[in-house]
Amino acid sequence: MHLPKRIVAEYFGSVSIVSELVPDFSRGDGLLPAIAQDATSGEVLMLAYMNSESFARTLASGEAVYYSRGRKRLWRKGETSGHVQKIRDVYVDCDADTILLKVDQVGGAACHQGYRSCFFRQRTADGWREVGERLFDPIDVYGKGETE
Amino acid sequence: MHLPKRIVAEYFGSVSIVSELVPDFSRGDGLLPAIAQDATSGEVLMLAYMNSESFARTLASGEAVYYSRGRKRLWRKGETSGHVQKIRDVYVDCDADTILLKVDQVGGAACHQGYRSCFFRQRTADGWREVGERLFDPIDVYGKGETE
Repeated sequence: MHLPKRIVAEYFGSVSIVSELVPDFSRGDGLLPAIAQDATSGEVLMLAYMNSESFARTLASGEAVYYSRGRKRLWRKGETSGHVQKIRDVYVDCDADTILLKVDQVGGAACHQGYRSCFFRQRTADGWREVGERLFDPIDVYGKGETE
Repeated sequence: MHLPKRIVAEYFGSVSIVSELVPDFSRGDGLLPAIAQDATSGEVLMLAYMNSESFARTLASGEAVYYSRGRKRLWRKGETSGHVQKIRDVYVDCDADTILLKVDQVGGAACHQGYRSCFFRQRTADGWREVGERLFDPIDVYGKGETE
């Protein structure tokens, strides 16, 4: 096991964080997949990507901050909808290239399409069927513009 | 929502499969992340990658087949250790670029390091600590050579 271990200092406003970052952000063009799992139910809610800055901000703020590959910028989950993810626990896998977050999902729905989980389509013998619970209509939350 | 829908025919030996592949393997250089979750406990076991062929083989065989980025070849989980993953359910996310598998993990340990889950390190205020349950010593299962 040869994990990269480096001490980084990150400053956000007046908050100084010195943390040992185990996730190896040198892999995958600086982006690692991060799985968000409901801390209470165990349901897998979504997968998004983090760079080292979004990971540091997640630890610092206690809320999930991802990196949007589409918009090429940091993306605080819930910044538009208010459906933030409160971090309960953070894990890293054996290869240090995947992050697992156990979260409390504010508002109940992690998916921008209004479902509790982004994994609302299940494979069946006849194709895919929707099995997820829809908690809101995206139009009501985001309008007709950009969603998050 | 603009999901790619294409009918593909895949032949494996005498088994003919015609399936509507929703996952969009045109993204991410043909590789999509696939999360394996214990179907009974809900524990997130691991994340690996699939290309369209490994996904089709997973559906056809009922056991998880990934694509190894390191070895650049298909990799049937458990091919060395015997710790295969029996597929219980398959989900795809809203953007059709992440797969979620609910599995029965034969042998109990998904991680090649002998842990039940690959996510055996948890972030604490003092750094990372091992929290996972180690079920086997990798040397006993893989010898000192290549692990899977």
